[in-house]
Amino acid sequence: MKNRFSRRHFMGGAAAALGALGLRPASALGLRLPPPPPGLAPVDPYDDLVKLASNENPYGPSEKMMASMNAAWKYSNRYGYPDGDIREKIAAHHGVDTRNIIMNAGSGETLRVAGLAFLGHNEKVVGVEPTFMTVYSVASGIDADPIMRPLLPDHTQDIDDLIQVTKRNYRDVGMVYVCNPNNPTGVVVPDSDIRHLLDNIPEDIPVLIDEAYHHFVQDPAYATAVPYIQEGRKVLVTRTFSKIYGMAGLRLGYGIAPAEMIAEMRIHSTGSVNALVKWGGVAALEDNESEAWVRDTTIALRDAAANELRDQGFEVIPSETNFFMVHTGRPASEVRSAFRQRNIAVGRNFPPMLDYLRVSIGTESEMEAFLAGWKEIFPNGMTATGSR
Amino acid sequence: MKNRFSRRHFMGGAAAALGALGLRPASALGLRLPPPPPGLAPVDPYDDLVKLASNENPYGPSEKMMASMNAAWKYSNRYGYPDGDIREKIAAHHGVDTRNIIMNAGSGETLRVAGLAFLGHNEKVVGVEPTFMTVYSVASGIDADPIMRPLLPDHTQDIDDLIQVTKRNYRDVGMVYVCNPNNPTGVVVPDSDIRHLLDNIPEDIPVLIDEAYHHFVQDPAYATAVPYIQEGRKVLVTRTFSKIYGMAGLRLGYGIAPAEMIAEMRIHSTGSVNALVKWGGVAALEDNESEAWVRDTTIALRDAAANELRDQGFEVIPSETNFFMVHTGRPASEVRSAFRQRNIAVGRNFPPMLDYLRVSIGTESEMEAFLAGWKEIFPNGMTATGSR
Repeated sequence: MKNRFSRRHFMGGAAAALGALGLRPASALGLRLPPPPPGLAPVDPYDDLVKLASNENPYGPSEKMMASMNAAWKYSNRYGYPDGDIREKIAAHHGVDTRNIIMNAGSGETLRVAGLAFLGHNEKVVGVEPTFMTVYSVASGIDADPIMRPLLPDHTQDIDDLIQVTKRNYRDVGMVYVCNPNNPTGVVVPDSDIRHLLDNIPEDIPVLIDEAYHHFVQDPAYATAVPYIQEGRKVLVTRTFSKIYGMAGLRLGYGIAPAEMIAEMRIHSTGSVNALVKWGGVAALEDNESEAWVRDTTIALRDAAANELRDQGFEVIPSETNFFMVHTGRPASEVRSAFRQRNIAVGRNFPPMLDYLRVSIGTESEMEAFLAGWKEIFPNGMTATGSR
Repeated sequence: MKNRFSRRHFMGGAAAALGALGLRPASALGLRLPPPPPGLAPVDPYDDLVKLASNENPYGPSEKMMASMNAAWKYSNRYGYPDGDIREKIAAHHGVDTRNIIMNAGSGETLRVAGLAFLGHNEKVVGVEPTFMTVYSVASGIDADPIMRPLLPDHTQDIDDLIQVTKRNYRDVGMVYVCNPNNPTGVVVPDSDIRHLLDNIPEDIPVLIDEAYHHFVQDPAYATAVPYIQEGRKVLVTRTFSKIYGMAGLRLGYGIAPAEMIAEMRIHSTGSVNALVKWGGVAALEDNESEAWVRDTTIALRDAAANELRDQGFEVIPSETNFFMVHTGRPASEVRSAFRQRNIAVGRNFPPMLDYLRVSIGTESEMEAFLAGWKEIFPNGMTATGSR
């Protein structure tokens, strides 16, 4: 694998934000070189972009995962090849039966399948805004309706509100969606709130609990919702190999639910998982050392960067994920553009939180580049924005 | 990539059919060794199985495709990475717009999506039997009904019959399915018959023409149905990278159709394509030399094997694909079991053609192993079966 960070390491710090795209501020070498003409660019500019926009794991698959995937090339041209018993291993990992597992090309597919399976024309899906929008967009595509409820002022999900809205629309609600921890805020729903939700809505309504960022959570009030499935509740938990295992571009995720829900979902599941990826997944589940390193490193970098911004007077929402949200006090889109000019990609718009910027946690040098860019964009700290 | 054929090449001929599974006939070395105890097997027995059962391309991706895929590992952990403009290149390959292309994880996904998009409760999909069953099984899953019509005695598809059945059930028919060339027979539908079909059924009924084996066809009466899409007809053509390009386990296929049909299909398409695979697809479209070699080699081996069986008195259906069907004169399942005992996997049941065996074209040594097995199973040629 090409070392795409070598030049960045060499130049270091603020200079790391330099690249081949957009306006180019003066570099540490004091030069302001024009971008190369077409065909002369030494690498794809994408490779040099500091990518803090999509909650990606910057490290990619571990060495053990790479070895497992590379050994599976021989299945490239095959159907029905040995797949490392990936489905059985996922089921065993959670202490459930394989009939409780649907394996998909990323948990985004699982979310889409759930929307198609459990929502019909004019039916409702209840959840908060902002959150991960895939289920809502599937709903819109099939003329179902999202009912999107605001977060509380402390950025937590208002579970009592979700309960009331669900009960008020009972006959029309096809599904409740809870992203936990929530994307883009990074805030968890405590297990007691999940139980409160499940105990107080009609028990025949499926509840989708999206645990894409599960592996980064440290808050002891959080717990996975898998035990509720074992209790027999109509709960679908989704998980992904895109985050902690760095497989976003490779596509592997899954859902865990009662067997009847899985059977209904299978009908609407059209994708299939690549042979290498199945073997990568098997190795990922067994590579606890790499998993712990990614988790610990990401959390350490997240907390260091967040505390640096807090020291400068900015509100950073406490996060339990591999990203955080910081209050910019002005349209985050402007801040995003300013970062883009420095060859750093951050966040996107998450209405209605339009003056919060979502920052994904990259490598140490990438976070240094981010903080250097931040100081340039906010030279006087939070005071310059006029708020807080 | 491990050379999985090395031992087979070394042993050659009939001995190539030896392996670690099932009953083990005496080898060329005169030994009848017991299978190794668990844990001591030097390789997965799957690797040594002669795989002529699933119409796979035995050669796998070409060197250029492998290089392109290996260079894309750096996107493993990314979303929205450069993808080699695979969608644009597929569109350009067919002279259509990207709005006419739906890219899927294998054309099996495209077939599933089409079924979900164009069939509803109690609606009908019209086609022949035997054929590739994915669309029919999707139909059954959503309580739609396949109307499966028999082939003509010469194994061709009875287009006038399909027209009549479609017109007779007009209000209920959601889609017509034509696999061309047909799997499992290997027989093409001439272009004139496709035009006859399109001209004589109500023009608002989508027609899915599955061209998975397109690249192996030599019959000048055949033509791709893509021009009918350019004429504005409601035609969906599906293609796959699984066969000619050896990517079955990697998953890449697509559909070509009017933009409105593609838009409707996108709603039901849940899968997504792996980053390496997108780059493999780009290289595949450009590697005309490898494509020609796979085609020519496959056709040469197919015709040699088929002619050998014909010389022994067996009917082999003339094929335009990477497989053929041979008349066994007794239940093909028995013949299949006899091959399986020789560590050779062939065909499966394709009712109602239960005394025909489908044989996929493997490498030269695999086809030698197949023919050696055939002579053991039919020591007296076709006369021994009592028919013909």
